Amino acid sequence: LKPLIIRSPETFREKQNIDARVRHRITAIDLKKQTVRDEDLETGKSFEEAFDLLLIATGASPVLPKIPGINAQGVYTLSTLQSGIAIRAAVDQKPPRRVVLVGGGYIGLEMAENFVYRGIQVTVIESASQVMNTIDADMAVLLADELRKNGVELFLDESLQGFDLQEEEVRAVVTDRRTLPADLVVMGLGVRPNTILAQEAGIPIGVTGGIKVNEKMQTEISGVWSAGNCTESFHLVSRRPVAFALGTIANKQGRIAGINMAGGSASFPGIVGTAMVKVFGLEVARTGLQEREARQAGISFAGSKIEARTRAGYYPGAGIIHVKILFEPKSRRLLGGQIVGREGSGKRIDVLATALHAGMTVEEMINLDLGYSPPFSPAWDPILIACRQAAGQV
Amino acid sequence: LKPLIIRSPETFREKQNIDARVRHRITAIDLKKQTVRDEDLETGKSFEEAFDLLLIATGASPVLPKIPGINAQGVYTLSTLQSGIAIRAAVDQKPPRRVVLVGGGYIGLEMAENFVYRGIQVTVIESASQVMNTIDADMAVLLADELRKNGVELFLDESLQGFDLQEEEVRAVVTDRRTLPADLVVMGLGVRPNTILAQEAGIPIGVTGGIKVNEKMQTEISGVWSAGNCTESFHLVSRRPVAFALGTIANKQGRIAGINMAGGSASFPGIVGTAMVKVFGLEVARTGLQEREARQAGISFAGSKIEARTRAGYYPGAGIIHVKILFEPKSRRLLGGQIVGREGSGKRIDVLATALHAGMTVEEMINLDLGYSPPFSPAWDPILIACRQAAGQV
Repeated sequence: LKPLIIRSPETFREKQNIDARVRHRITAIDLKKQTVRDEDLETGKSFEEAFDLLLIATGASPVLPKIPGINAQGVYTLSTLQSGIAIRAAVDQKPPRRVVLVGGGYIGLEMAENFVYRGIQVTVIESASQVMNTIDADMAVLLADELRKNGVELFLDESLQGFDLQEEEVRAVVTDRRTLPADLVVMGLGVRPNTILAQEAGIPIGVTGGIKVNEKMQTEISGVWSAGNCTESFHLVSRRPVAFALGTIANKQGRIAGINMAGGSASFPGIVGTAMVKVFGLEVARTGLQEREARQAGISFAGSKIEARTRAGYYPGAGIIHVKILFEPKSRRLLGGQIVGREGSGKRIDVLATALHAGMTVEEMINLDLGYSPPFSPAWDPILIACRQAAGQV
Repeated sequence: LKPLIIRSPETFREKQNIDARVRHRITAIDLKKQTVRDEDLETGKSFEEAFDLLLIATGASPVLPKIPGINAQGVYTLSTLQSGIAIRAAVDQKPPRRVVLVGGGYIGLEMAENFVYRGIQVTVIESASQVMNTIDADMAVLLADELRKNGVELFLDESLQGFDLQEEEVRAVVTDRRTLPADLVVMGLGVRPNTILAQEAGIPIGVTGGIKVNEKMQTEISGVWSAGNCTESFHLVSRRPVAFALGTIANKQGRIAGINMAGGSASFPGIVGTAMVKVFGLEVARTGLQEREARQAGISFAGSKIEARTRAGYYPGAGIIHVKILFEPKSRRLLGGQIVGREGSGKRIDVLATALHAGMTVEEMINLDLGYSPPFSPAWDPILIACRQAAGQV
């Protein structure tokens, strides 16, 4: 097994002269005195620590409904490394027969696949009428099919009401329609930015619930910076702030904040909302605005949806790929795209993401000189076919 | 086996009311009379055919040196469907023990792989000091390694002098350094636009040797259009005409010409020079200008070359990917990119191609919101790592 931790506290200390303290918690920030209260979780002692510059990178935490049993044994979240290790240990120690996953988002979908691969019966419940609400319903049905084809029991429009417990241990998940026996439950209802510390210190929070920052990753308080999943991003398509808790964005924001705090100069112009997930044999990707988001942003849209092949039709391994793009009818600019398909489908989203950064129109995109060779693509890349259709040129 | 022919002459006739004549050759164009001379290759008869609009789509033909033995039995080119069928038939009938491929370009590389898979001993000779001269020498060495690792004998800086024949049949290839026994030879020295017909009719040819056209695919003669491998393209990075004989460009040009000739309106702004090839376990892709092309275009350049992984390092199947990008030091604009790597590497070229179309700088590209998920990419996509390095931010 390869390590998930890229750099240890020791490496930070020895190689980079950074005093990285783990098992420490900051319990308060005093902006006037420019200090933080640092609690050593090992000793229980706390002390004041002065700062010249402060970075808040408190991340996000899983959303958990306040219902009885939510803290029972056998009910897990998957957020920190520790929580992943805990699930793994539970499965290794006493393999569950039935797992219920609450929520059909990225966590639910990825966990479903991996529990199935371990031979465990999996049920997913989702209160919405589709899985993965970051893609449109017509694309999400392809995902639901793939889940069911792989033996996952999927209940849509069905919400968690409570748990049946036995000696403080979960035995079943109770929904508004049925009782589902379960030895192990994973809660995957999304995350919320961890901003209480910032809020209590008087650092402004944005409308999204994330900490407000500018392009330099500065908060509205001089000398205080914020980066990662606790922080808002600017959406380059909707031109609005968003809270998008993804590792790739957190990584970029952290780098920008670090460069600027160290006296350099870098800017983070914003995101376009790209995300990907593998669900069994399907690759799923999205970028920009989906229909719901375009509606919420008050941007009128039209769609183009096509089915094509990942490779030249005659080449072995050519699989189905579905591409949907949204564009603004009047300006013709691309608004977003969604891809669901077999091997080689997902990373094609990057063309749409790059085009969104550049503010391209679908007409400009038709003749993009994308890579072609039979093992990798049909002569007309599926992305181009979707753009052609959007332009009314089939 | 899946058919390579997408649409037959019969389908053209019946479904689209297009009189598609195969085994016919146009031997002359009379622009004043607006006629062509059409020779029926079956009957040998020829007749005049009038036109209102004319499209020249005569393609390109393999470059063949004028040396004795070039037409001998056992010496092939790979250009038309028929030439492919001929090679296949020869191999099926009497499997050659030794094949010599003359030229280390796309054809030579793809043929090498497929002959090796059939258990045949393969030698490639190339007069340049590297294979695939459309990528830089430092990237091409990765390809040479892969060829040799897979048992291909590769002789660089070595040029074809002649053939040893026995009863009009090829027995060996003679280079300036040695004699290589061969039962079958494939000539892969590139192609040249077929423009004699156009030239004889007085249709202007460009500096590249291809037929000159504007964005609409019109030649300089009113009512006469040209598309495909006989036609020049405009290179959006060098701002110069180029002759780039690739199916994906031919396809796009044909579509544009067709729309315009039928009374519609479409433009072909140009190409950025994207191309891909699979060589055993390596995916090779390039776009924009390589070092030589930048030099020829008089554009100053700097490079950035990185090695990374195709997936998150801990995810099974994460393979090495090499990315090299070129950019203009003063304007910071991207000039081109080259990728050599394992599965999942090649189509990443599309991000660079799209960025070239948009005229992006490397600094603008650092924060591209590209898709991330461990099965598909590290948190920092290799393309972004190359851009970071180009921007001096490691």
